[in-house]
Amino acid sequence: MLFNSIDFMAMTLALQQAKLSMNSSPNPRVGCVIVKEKRIIACGYTKNIGGNHAEIDALFNAAAQGYDVYNSTVYITLEPCNYFGHTPPCTEALIKSGIKKVIIAINDPNPLVSGKGVAQLISAGISVKQGLMQKEAYEINIGFFSRMQRGIPWVRMKIASSLDNKISLYNNVSQWITSKESRNDGHIWRARSCAILTGIGTVLKDNPRLNIRSIKTSRQPYRIIIDSYLRINPFLKVLKGGGSYIFTATDLPIKKKILEDFGNEVIILPNDLGQVDLRAVIIELGKKKINELHIEAGSKLNTALILEGCVDELLLYISPSLLGEAYNMFTLPPHYSLDKKIKLKFHEIQKIGPDLRILARF
Amino acid sequence: MLFNSIDFMAMTLALQQAKLSMNSSPNPRVGCVIVKEKRIIACGYTKNIGGNHAEIDALFNAAAQGYDVYNSTVYITLEPCNYFGHTPPCTEALIKSGIKKVIIAINDPNPLVSGKGVAQLISAGISVKQGLMQKEAYEINIGFFSRMQRGIPWVRMKIASSLDNKISLYNNVSQWITSKESRNDGHIWRARSCAILTGIGTVLKDNPRLNIRSIKTSRQPYRIIIDSYLRINPFLKVLKGGGSYIFTATDLPIKKKILEDFGNEVIILPNDLGQVDLRAVIIELGKKKINELHIEAGSKLNTALILEGCVDELLLYISPSLLGEAYNMFTLPPHYSLDKKIKLKFHEIQKIGPDLRILARF
Repeated sequence: MLFNSIDFMAMTLALQQAKLSMNSSPNPRVGCVIVKEKRIIACGYTKNIGGNHAEIDALFNAAAQGYDVYNSTVYITLEPCNYFGHTPPCTEALIKSGIKKVIIAINDPNPLVSGKGVAQLISAGISVKQGLMQKEAYEINIGFFSRMQRGIPWVRMKIASSLDNKISLYNNVSQWITSKESRNDGHIWRARSCAILTGIGTVLKDNPRLNIRSIKTSRQPYRIIIDSYLRINPFLKVLKGGGSYIFTATDLPIKKKILEDFGNEVIILPNDLGQVDLRAVIIELGKKKINELHIEAGSKLNTALILEGCVDELLLYISPSLLGEAYNMFTLPPHYSLDKKIKLKFHEIQKIGPDLRILARF
Repeated sequence: MLFNSIDFMAMTLALQQAKLSMNSSPNPRVGCVIVKEKRIIACGYTKNIGGNHAEIDALFNAAAQGYDVYNSTVYITLEPCNYFGHTPPCTEALIKSGIKKVIIAINDPNPLVSGKGVAQLISAGISVKQGLMQKEAYEINIGFFSRMQRGIPWVRMKIASSLDNKISLYNNVSQWITSKESRNDGHIWRARSCAILTGIGTVLKDNPRLNIRSIKTSRQPYRIIIDSYLRINPFLKVLKGGGSYIFTATDLPIKKKILEDFGNEVIILPNDLGQVDLRAVIIELGKKKINELHIEAGSKLNTALILEGCVDELLLYISPSLLGEAYNMFTLPPHYSLDKKIKLKFHEIQKIGPDLRILARF
């Protein structure tokens, strides 16, 4: 299927629009551009849950500017929905509007929609083309695709280290190994996530807030704490305002009730060793409609998550420095053959200030 | 000083020519391009020691093609020499040729030349402009600049590791952590070096040849072995054909004589601890006209070289893999403050096959 340069420009703009809906979860991030007689007449993007989808937003913007969309071409980064959710189906609005053609980057992985949205448009006489900038459209919704196709979130583990792979000195000093630029960039990745997961070790040691401060955001991600022995207390910063999920392996009804009275949810998911079953946590977070899960934990929990195959990609910030003997990024067990190594793939490398940002996928 | 687009194109080509003289050491790598009436009429580059310099090569190539260089502009990546070395001064040949203008990327750091070459051209009525693509011209001769300005080689340490910073499993298995593409790329860096330095530990463990095999080269770099207790024997592969320098802290006259009978040189440079004085080795290699020194050693020697401030840059090949507990890249001592960290700067990052190549400078 061939696309022309106007198609590429319009879809590039639609993808930029989709990036404005970073916080639309659990809905996918969608952008829409309407082109009529080779001119862009309107743009739109999906608003936060309950708000307009990208297509409706674009149609509305066109009308608000006095444009008639009759006979126009609509570029959408994801197949339009054909069912009633929080909002009416977008396919109907598109059909009613009198548009001539729809170009879609990628099909919706949601089984309620997938292919059906396109079929509905075609049966209404609208010309539909698919697959333009499909890869980019997949990447922007990687978490939504993961949850729709695998039932679990896309799991990203963020680590800041020195060039010799150290995350903290032996006296636990780790602020700061990487630059301010990297830390700010880290907040952008936190902000796009639906939830931030950490371990009780980090919570008790650093008392972090685990929220977004460096950049603007329209909502704070959920906080998830892995706490096998329910050592947490409700006055820690991470639980401020409630709304956290605490996964534990220990059933302490009174403490559970106190934590829940503070607005948190305590979920008991033990494994055979009396610790939190990490795979089960990931599955539970899928059920809770978490698309992208961001992990910022210590070496021990990070290692366990990797060994249990819970992680999809590493987001590494590497500072150009050598710390010497200190705590390593992971404490994975030794091997006697290189065949046993855990293989990844470098997905994206970028300089962030003086540091290096590496996105590597398992 | 303003340069036009022809100037940039011609100097870019001259820099490419300079890359053809990668093995001209101890002489600098120089490229030359002659432009007449907006056309490139000849190129040239410095040949291996005793051969023509870039300017002479270009003038010769112009004549061989029947071009008259009268009134032309000559682009040279380094200030032309004005003294008799192995060859007559290039300034004289340029003046005699009738050229009108010379554009130079960077001044020669050699105190015998620096500024004097330019002065001679100017006093002969040739118009001279300097500083075009200076940074690139410096980089290509970084070793020559280092030796001329500091008296010591530019020291590059090559290390291949996993993403978790491991260079070898505990059973010493390390072949191969990185890809074939990275290993071939490593040979390109070996080939451009004047000498390859390693430790006796690596020599006895791996019995490496430490020569260039994956790519063509017009000469093999010298081999330098750090061997505090003179444990080496003349039948190891690294000494094949002689021509190695062995630095030791132990005076064993008979063994020294045997090694020297095999065509090697044994140099006794002990420090107060009865080990080889590494700073003194670097100074000695400067005296031996080594421009670029390539280090491929084990963790222990690498660590000592870094701690003694002997290293200018790290050339890291990082494989997208996690090896788990294994030998680390370095065994630097611990610190109690992040202020004590060893600082570097990322100079260049590149994907090499599936791996990452990082050039980081101290």
